[in-house]
Amino acid sequence: MSELRIGLIGAGYMGKAHTVGFQGVAAIFETVLRPVCEMIATSTAEGAAEHARRWGWHRSTGDWRELVADPHVDAIVIATPPRTHLDMVMACIAAGKPVFCEKPLGASADESLRMTEAVERARLPNMIGFNYIRTPASQLARQIIASGEIGDVIQVTAEHVEDYLHDPALPASWRTRIATGTEAGALGDVAPHIVNACLRLVGPIASLVADTQIVHARRDGPDGQEAVENDDQGQMLLRFANGATGSISFSRMAAGRKMGYTYRITGTRGAIAFDQEDQNALWLYDAAREPSRRGFQKLLMGPAHPDYLAFNQGVGHGTGYNDQIIIEARDFLQAISTGESVWPTFRDGYEVDRIIEAALLSNRERRWVTID
Amino acid sequence: MSELRIGLIGAGYMGKAHTVGFQGVAAIFETVLRPVCEMIATSTAEGAAEHARRWGWHRSTGDWRELVADPHVDAIVIATPPRTHLDMVMACIAAGKPVFCEKPLGASADESLRMTEAVERARLPNMIGFNYIRTPASQLARQIIASGEIGDVIQVTAEHVEDYLHDPALPASWRTRIATGTEAGALGDVAPHIVNACLRLVGPIASLVADTQIVHARRDGPDGQEAVENDDQGQMLLRFANGATGSISFSRMAAGRKMGYTYRITGTRGAIAFDQEDQNALWLYDAAREPSRRGFQKLLMGPAHPDYLAFNQGVGHGTGYNDQIIIEARDFLQAISTGESVWPTFRDGYEVDRIIEAALLSNRERRWVTID
Amino acid sequence: MSELRIGLIGAGYMGKAHTVGFQGVAAIFETVLRPVCEMIATSTAEGAAEHARRWGWHRSTGDWRELVADPHVDAIVIATPPRTHLDMVMACIAAGKPVFCEKPLGASADESLRMTEAVERARLPNMIGFNYIRTPASQLARQIIASGEIGDVIQVTAEHVEDYLHDPALPASWRTRIATGTEAGALGDVAPHIVNACLRLVGPIASLVADTQIVHARRDGPDGQEAVENDDQGQMLLRFANGATGSISFSRMAAGRKMGYTYRITGTRGAIAFDQEDQNALWLYDAAREPSRRGFQKLLMGPAHPDYLAFNQGVGHGTGYNDQIIIEARDFLQAISTGESVWPTFRDGYEVDRIIEAALLSNRERRWVTID
Amino acid sequence: MSELRIGLIGAGYMGKAHTVGFQGVAAIFETVLRPVCEMIATSTAEGAAEHARRWGWHRSTGDWRELVADPHVDAIVIATPPRTHLDMVMACIAAGKPVFCEKPLGASADESLRMTEAVERARLPNMIGFNYIRTPASQLARQIIASGEIGDVIQVTAEHVEDYLHDPALPASWRTRIATGTEAGALGDVAPHIVNACLRLVGPIASLVADTQIVHARRDGPDGQEAVENDDQGQMLLRFANGATGSISFSRMAAGRKMGYTYRITGTRGAIAFDQEDQNALWLYDAAREPSRRGFQKLLMGPAHPDYLAFNQGVGHGTGYNDQIIIEARDFLQAISTGESVWPTFRDGYEVDRIIEAALLSNRERRWVTID
Ligand SMILES: NC(=O)C1=CN([C@@H]2O[C@H](COP(=O)(O)OP(=O)(O)OC[C@H]3O[C@@H](n4cnc5c(N)ncnc54)[C@H](O)[C@@H]3O)[C@@H](O)[C@H]2O)C=CC1
Ligand SMILES: NC(=O)C1=CN([C@@H]2O[C@H](COP(=O)(O)OP(=O)(O)OC[C@H]3O[C@@H](n4cnc5c(N)ncnc54)[C@H](O)[C@@H]3O)[C@@H](O)[C@H]2O)C=CC1
Ligand SMILES: NC(=O)C1=CN([C@@H]2O[C@H](COP(=O)(O)OP(=O)(O)OC[C@H]3O[C@@H](n4cnc5c(N)ncnc54)[C@H](O)[C@@H]3O)[C@@H](O)[C@H]2O)C=CC1
Ligand SMILES: NC(=O)C1=CN([C@@H]2O[C@H](COP(=O)(O)OP(=O)(O)OC[C@H]3O[C@@H](n4cnc5c(N)ncnc54)[C@H](O)[C@@H]3O)[C@@H](O)[C@H]2O)C=CC1
Repeated sequence: MSELRIGLIGAGYMGKAHTVGFQGVAAIFETVLRPVCEMIATSTAEGAAEHARRWGWHRSTGDWRELVADPHVDAIVIATPPRTHLDMVMACIAAGKPVFCEKPLGASADESLRMTEAVERARLPNMIGFNYIRTPASQLARQIIASGEIGDVIQVTAEHVEDYLHDPALPASWRTRIATGTEAGALGDVAPHIVNACLRLVGPIASLVADTQIVHARRDGPDGQEAVENDDQGQMLLRFANGATGSISFSRMAAGRKMGYTYRITGTRGAIAFDQEDQNALWLYDAAREPSRRGFQKLLMGPAHPDYLAFNQGVGHGTGYNDQIIIEARDFLQAISTGESVWPTFRDGYEVDRIIEAALLSNRERRWVTID
Repeated sequence: MSELRIGLIGAGYMGKAHTVGFQGVAAIFETVLRPVCEMIATSTAEGAAEHARRWGWHRSTGDWRELVADPHVDAIVIATPPRTHLDMVMACIAAGKPVFCEKPLGASADESLRMTEAVERARLPNMIGFNYIRTPASQLARQIIASGEIGDVIQVTAEHVEDYLHDPALPASWRTRIATGTEAGALGDVAPHIVNACLRLVGPIASLVADTQIVHARRDGPDGQEAVENDDQGQMLLRFANGATGSISFSRMAAGRKMGYTYRITGTRGAIAFDQEDQNALWLYDAAREPSRRGFQKLLMGPAHPDYLAFNQGVGHGTGYNDQIIIEARDFLQAISTGESVWPTFRDGYEVDRIIEAALLSNRERRWVTID
Repeated sequence: MSELRIGLIGAGYMGKAHTVGFQGVAAIFETVLRPVCEMIATSTAEGAAEHARRWGWHRSTGDWRELVADPHVDAIVIATPPRTHLDMVMACIAAGKPVFCEKPLGASADESLRMTEAVERARLPNMIGFNYIRTPASQLARQIIASGEIGDVIQVTAEHVEDYLHDPALPASWRTRIATGTEAGALGDVAPHIVNACLRLVGPIASLVADTQIVHARRDGPDGQEAVENDDQGQMLLRFANGATGSISFSRMAAGRKMGYTYRITGTRGAIAFDQEDQNALWLYDAAREPSRRGFQKLLMGPAHPDYLAFNQGVGHGTGYNDQIIIEARDFLQAISTGESVWPTFRDGYEVDRIIEAALLSNRERRWVTID
Repeated sequence: MSELRIGLIGAGYMGKAHTVGFQGVAAIFETVLRPVCEMIATSTAEGAAEHARRWGWHRSTGDWRELVADPHVDAIVIATPPRTHLDMVMACIAAGKPVFCEKPLGASADESLRMTEAVERARLPNMIGFNYIRTPASQLARQIIASGEIGDVIQVTAEHVEDYLHDPALPASWRTRIATGTEAGALGDVAPHIVNACLRLVGPIASLVADTQIVHARRDGPDGQEAVENDDQGQMLLRFANGATGSISFSRMAAGRKMGYTYRITGTRGAIAFDQEDQNALWLYDAAREPSRRGFQKLLMGPAHPDYLAFNQGVGHGTGYNDQIIIEARDFLQAISTGESVWPTFRDGYEVDRIIEAALLSNRERRWVTID
């Protein structure tokens, strides 16, 4: 097994998760490449040094460009706010290094397209951080739909709703600002995951109409109250290219929902349902059973399901959030060792960002928008 | 206690339910009026006679006009397909008799308005069959919202989805035809219940955008395959007058969902959630609790909740579908004995039908529609 | 259809339920006999008169012997505390009248045996009030087990736990006294239902060991604090004649459990699980499915399940507590019209009471007890 | 941070889990000691070498005594079948090395006592593998009970039931044999976890009565069918020293239950309930709330709960099975760095094994057994 030296930019919520992912992956999966936590970058040299010490990265820097350029860094993971992704990704590509970028790929669909085209032109392994779609349950959902087990999809009811900003006393951050975050609030922060699920599980979206709202207009900032610049919540109607329709809710204000990434997908022969708050179960309904034996069945994930066995030999013993990141790490390593990007790639990130942008447009112009 | 002689038109699904309601109500509730099952009318004299015998109605007729005119019929319940409601209701009003009409009130908002204005002009007790909103749990939901316990409502995710026409082998009926049913399919059959819940629990809807689909284009009819003329499923986005927003799904094709009348209503201080498939529980989230003790709480209905004690003294022992109809019967009797209509009235039925009509328009013209 | 004039003794919790049952049954089921609420008896003439007026019984009396003797009373329902059952039942038998008795049949197994032998000798239709076993879901459970669908039963985990006396401030009553209640507290009040379920679903119990406790030693009585004389909670281990084993918990102190009548029954080919708090669902597990498609399936009751269709044509629309009593009323009427008692009969009540008595003995002597 | 070189014996189910634990712990928790995966031993040199390669252990051996003696191994983790624990543990103690041993500690209570006394005499940090009690939810359960939040515990209904041997076609193994496993089957394999939970959450057990069964008498072995020598399932009644009572079910035959480690603990002021199949939720019932607002509350684990924040900053994002093992690794490292053993220790393992032994005795002699 040869080593792959990782460089990580960002030491916040996702920075820690990716650290866990790379340190844990080798014990779980048999990968051709064994990752080494080589270097970490944050906004400040001190912060980076401190995180390196605590999380076990060999070296650190306060300048991400240094990390990208470092000859002992083989591949890069970007876990910083969306507004920073473009420059970082472009630098990685220029340096010829494989790159993993957190969602949303860009601060706009245009940015995402530029990154996607550049990375594809450079034929560099690349990946986007849609971790939720990689749970055993959501992978199983995809298998079930793809195999035709529930027939043709006719309807989708989906959401990604959390309540991390429900409390009006919580301060402003990059998440509430356009300059450092994106024009899309919850739409840019949580919706990408569930839009991606819709694209992945059902197929391309042909048109949509969206409506978003800011609930708490102002929040505390460093210089007193400041305006919340992007949406706290919203919902959209979808028409898929294959004729299915559906709706998505997204929110950072959904009191009581902590990890409300859910979908119910109905087909002509059955249905599936999932709720990430109970991430080890997928519900399956088979309309072909005889009437007295019809009902949703709770499938607890186990060795018979995608990517579960490596974590545990027992059904229902359960994987958690960090295990999703371990799966991502495995895939990124595999992409690099084979030279073939593993889904989801930057292009998938771009496809999601097109939908986000269409939703922003739809909301602004109060009309249906066609995605061409 | 004096008697009230009921005339029932229609002996299908709801005809039976109302029979059960009137025969059961007196043992449950103390009503001033005791209902007598006086007369039943269906399309044919034989059918009516047979149902009278089986269900315990004193007399029967194949001509509903005879029933309306009968001097021994004091009040009338209409449980026939929507297209028939207008004539029947108008005849009842002309005869000066209190009238209960199943939902949807009219086959169009215009019809509904005519009935509503006529019944109000005549000052006759009147009621519309929105039974789901009368469960103890949904009454409690209303109390909780009205009292401000969850703060100002900011978002609603709701649906009424069933799968009674999921199987393409099921035949056409008035439900799939415009001439005898309505232009709205699932939108006219199930959506009214959940639209009514939104209006009742959250308030007036200011604008909406809707999208509906026919999934199975043709079904068996008496003369071979015929076209399905109205929607099998759909969804809409809502903007409420008070600033809240939300979405509604409605379907007769939602494989696996049998009684999927659900809502999650989020406020600035908490949230509630409900699923009619578990009709004896309301879930309540209080955002003010300290972080380690926050979570949705499952309130099983009991004597401390609206209209439960009359059914049972034990918490969680449970009410069922017919108990909703018994509550309706109690209210209709009370309306007649006091002369004051009890919510929901024809006007509520009309308010719902305006939303349905706006949804039809929105779907047709592919745009947001304002309800004035 | 001919009439059957019912006499009801007792106007408490169950008195009301049976009133509802007899007034509602004819609209739900097609019965040969149509019940008439003829006469009601309680401890006092005034109370009886008041209940007659409120609930719609034609006549009333403060002396139950008068009711039993009344020539216009055709059949009798006993809904009074256990200690009174023996005399009342014996009087009914002496009068040659069909009799329905609430559980537990007697205040002791010996009493129960005397009643059972007498009623059988007299060949009178008789029934015992084990209503929970008559829900559609529990009837389906029985079908599934009886058909071998889950193979041979190997284990049962069951309970009937409620919390109606959890609060120590609640007063003493017949339920806490031996003289007017029974030596068995929760064991006599709630356990009979679940013991009956075990007998019915799995088969005869061969031996058991039980342990009971009084949690709150004293409660307020009419003359100040008095001793609680029988158990508040307990549990037992069971060995069935067919080799299966299991356990039962019973309690009137189970904080938070309101109608905790639950069972999980495991067989060599699968399992079923049920919780009365969600009475419209039965969970079924089929071990023969392929590993990736194994999981408990939630069957919502519907027209394809026992005794559901008469209540409602829609799956999952739901029955409630009173509907169980309507099913009992239907069966009692049928027993009388055919002359054939319908399960569960007094003998079933006696079989349960033998288990209760064995549990009392086991608890007293701290040892396994064989039921011969 | 200094390094601690771990030696692991056993490369089966738990061997992998502990590998994951030690490789993942440093990224999650800030530990004083950083573990190094130094050496692994299994039954054969080749097997050990292969696992070392795949899982990232520096060295390997087919002789566990070599591992124990190795001067570069600082601390030892034993993850082999129960019958081997005594020799291994004693060797570790003789070598003066901190030792973590999987459950059950010994193949008998006597063995467990010898290990416990030896390790305590040697004042060596020691730990036993009761991982389930270390989830955030079960730690929270302990806090809630210990703080008096649900009052005095009065009743416990608990189980650890899985179905890993439900299929009669599954072969014999050490789990079904006494010579290499223990006299206790499911009682020795799964029951220790839930017995430990009872001891930890409620307190010492004073007496018990148990009943166990072998369901499938014979299974395929290397030389044809062989006898299953220990129990497949069973149940016991408990009396705790503090007056609470309860029951435990344990099974390796519980069709459909995959990780059925559950408990409902009732106190004088409320109750808690937990099911390991939904390991990120603890249900809490507070009897002091006003009647209309009483109900079990689903607390999704989050940063406000024990040991959660290190895994994730978001409520409800979820931990999984391996995260329990990471918590164990953290505690074992801490025990070594401070010299103070962290609960649960060998003594806890011994306390559990005494209960298991009492259960075996109770089953054999068909009587209540007092634990002194
Ligand atoms: N996949 C998922 O489940 C989640 C993904 N995300 C995504 O991950 C990304 C990061 O989000 P969080 O970790 O929540 O943010 P955070 O605010 O917790 O951390 C951001 C980190 O980026 C660093 N950073 C910011 N600007 C930098 C610069 N110019 N140079 C070097 N470091 C810089 C900060 O020092 C900080 O360590 C975002 O794109 C977000 O959308 C966030 C949460 C969950
Ligand atoms: N509130 C609720 O939960 C439900 C309400 N409904 C509503 O109840 C109404 C009836 O629906 P269902 O009972 O399902 O219909 P159904 O098709 O089962 O029964 C219709 C009945 O109306 C009778 N009828 C039709 N035309 C008639 C006429 N001209 N004169 C006399 N009788 C006539 C038929 O003979 C039949 O007995 C509809 O408005 C429907 O939307 C239906 C189901 C549930
Ligand atoms: N099947 C079920 O789900 C339930 C069954 N039960 C059973 O039903 C029976 C009655 O229980 P509850 O209704 O809860 O009791 P309760 O205390 O609510 O009512 C008892 C009634 O019996 C009357 N009564 C007592 N002695 C009498 C006498 N000598 N003559 C005439 N009337 C007399 C009282 O006046 C009162 O109306 C008991 O055997 C109990 O175990 C009770 C609750 C639920
Ligand atoms: N805490 C938990 O959740 C669990 C604990 N366990 C416990 O862990 C222990 C191991 O169980 P599993 O991993 O399931 O067993 P397993 O059968 O999967 O693996 C046993 C391992 O021990 C090795 N081994 C056996 N004898 C040996 C010897 N003399 N020298 C060196 N290696 C030897 C084998 O080569 C094999 O690698 C048992 O005590 C069991 O009760 C098992 C499963 C779950």
